[in-house]
Amino acid sequence: MNGAAERDESTTSTAAVDAVVQAGGPRLTALLERTESRLVELAAGHGDTLARHATATISAGGKRLRPLLVFLTAGEGFSEAAEARLVRAAAAVELIHSASLVHDDVLDAAPLRRGAPTVIAAAGRTVATATGDLLFSRAFAELADGGEIDDVRALSAAASALAAGELMQREDAWDATVPLERYLHRCELKTGSLFEAACRLGALGGRTGFRPPAPASGPPAGDVTTALAEFGRRIGLAFQLLDDVLDVSGPASRTGKARGTDLLDGTVTLPLILARERDPELAQLDLHGLSTPADAEQVCERIAATGALAAAKGQALAVVEAARADLPPLPPDQRHALELVAEGVVERYS
Amino acid sequence: MNGAAERDESTTSTAAVDAVVQAGGPRLTALLERTESRLVELAAGHGDTLARHATATISAGGKRLRPLLVFLTAGEGFSEAAEARLVRAAAAVELIHSASLVHDDVLDAAPLRRGAPTVIAAAGRTVATATGDLLFSRAFAELADGGEIDDVRALSAAASALAAGELMQREDAWDATVPLERYLHRCELKTGSLFEAACRLGALGGRTGFRPPAPASGPPAGDVTTALAEFGRRIGLAFQLLDDVLDVSGPASRTGKARGTDLLDGTVTLPLILARERDPELAQLDLHGLSTPADAEQVCERIAATGALAAAKGQALAVVEAARADLPPLPPDQRHALELVAEGVVERYS
Repeated sequence: MNGAAERDESTTSTAAVDAVVQAGGPRLTALLERTESRLVELAAGHGDTLARHATATISAGGKRLRPLLVFLTAGEGFSEAAEARLVRAAAAVELIHSASLVHDDVLDAAPLRRGAPTVIAAAGRTVATATGDLLFSRAFAELADGGEIDDVRALSAAASALAAGELMQREDAWDATVPLERYLHRCELKTGSLFEAACRLGALGGRTGFRPPAPASGPPAGDVTTALAEFGRRIGLAFQLLDDVLDVSGPASRTGKARGTDLLDGTVTLPLILARERDPELAQLDLHGLSTPADAEQVCERIAATGALAAAKGQALAVVEAARADLPPLPPDQRHALELVAEGVVERYS
Repeated sequence: MNGAAERDESTTSTAAVDAVVQAGGPRLTALLERTESRLVELAAGHGDTLARHATATISAGGKRLRPLLVFLTAGEGFSEAAEARLVRAAAAVELIHSASLVHDDVLDAAPLRRGAPTVIAAAGRTVATATGDLLFSRAFAELADGGEIDDVRALSAAASALAAGELMQREDAWDATVPLERYLHRCELKTGSLFEAACRLGALGGRTGFRPPAPASGPPAGDVTTALAEFGRRIGLAFQLLDDVLDVSGPASRTGKARGTDLLDGTVTLPLILARERDPELAQLDLHGLSTPADAEQVCERIAATGALAAAKGQALAVVEAARADLPPLPPDQRHALELVAEGVVERYS
């Protein structure tokens, strides 16, 4: 399975995220720090076992890309009253992300994540499943405590999509003929939806309480929210596409895992989908026939030989470009920050 | 693990539930049918894989005890406007229950539930974990769509408690010295919390829109809600205590599973906790030393010989009695229905 955390590690440039945070100044840094503290509190507040394992998962780092999107889409003019809502939203999104990582690791029986033992490795399947369930529940409890039903709606839609995407991936496993459209929809469900929710939560939260009125020529607030959510969806989609390219392109020294891991799992992704149009033998590929990393590596080479990797990257870059082009009218600094994040997603490919 | 569905099957009398439904008349029947339809819709609406496995889980029956409690605690005078809210709440509670069953089965690698293959048996660990996650998410989406933040709050608290209880059970596994208080708290988390949420959701939903004013002498609505929630918590606690007694008392012909299943899982429950005070050798029991059903059976006999089973039943019955005694002032029919449910929980023991 191509777990979301591996994506985290491999796809987005840490330098780009750092640049965005730097540009955001002390207020953005303070909001991210409040989110971090809240995550630690939430991990600590539910018994020893959760504290141990959830803290290990939550606090082990990650770039906090989704919380960052919450704050960046909230804009610059948001009130202090909005801050609490945004911090809740940022923590909730990261909790859902963490929960999905813990469950992914259970499914993969993965030994390590971000260099540390996974919950399943440290404590077994039962604790890991329950830890994921608890992180998941806490995300909704956190938003419920905030009292904003729109926020709950946005997050529950994303959480449903995430699980539906995981199910779809299993449904399509080992099927080398999966249609492109279905693959793209799966990526939107699995990854795009939580990015979309982060941006929607930011846009909603940023309007809490007092805010300077939008310029008279600007679009209504609802349209801006929809447009920012769409931006998030596309960035998430591109994130997933590029991660799927990395799985085939490697090198392992950059991704931290062997090439073709997805193929060995029976997961068919964009490179193979594009390559099978170009190489008739790949169209006949029986994924069950791949049993060793060397087999997978060989298929990766064959996919690369068709030029499908460049084509797949091109599709992902086009998605990012469209996301940037369709950003709604925003204050220049906010627009710039969101563009930097978009660049960060693709930076390692340009 | 002593999965909640086994509890469902073994502890509460179907006849008692039927009697309550009968007494509730066509309106209660209609609400339960609407809940059933909604559950089928929710299972069907998210792709083939979910439809197949979730429908199998959700539609395989169960007594719908939690939805029943939602409607019974809503009372008799609730408006038609409240019905939609209550049906959502009933469906959401049952979805959380179903999600926990699916995850329990994953942990147990259980082959059958309610006579049908479990999701994990039919489709493997990945699909089962994701199916549970999706049912879980759908529960929150269902409440978010209803727009009542108090409902989301009640359900997320219960979902968190459920997972925390599961974690606590793993934390305490194989420890024959676990304190009584800690065991009782675990039961409240694992089972009491969702019953509590069902009753709270019913009490909250029943007040939606128009409702005949309470008698001038009655307590304020908030107190009634709290009291009904407490009733639910205690009924759930008793439900779990009695299920734990059944695991030791058997007979297998009644429970559908071998005696001492919990002991073999390392799960220490009330009978052993009470018995170890009476039989010093049981206080020294090394649960890791039990490896066969015959070993477990032998410990069950030894526990029974101390009289601990009768004492444990007595504790559970006292909890139910306290729940009934502390019911708030209610219309006679509503009170009677809730008392019937309470009786149903203990019927097979009296």
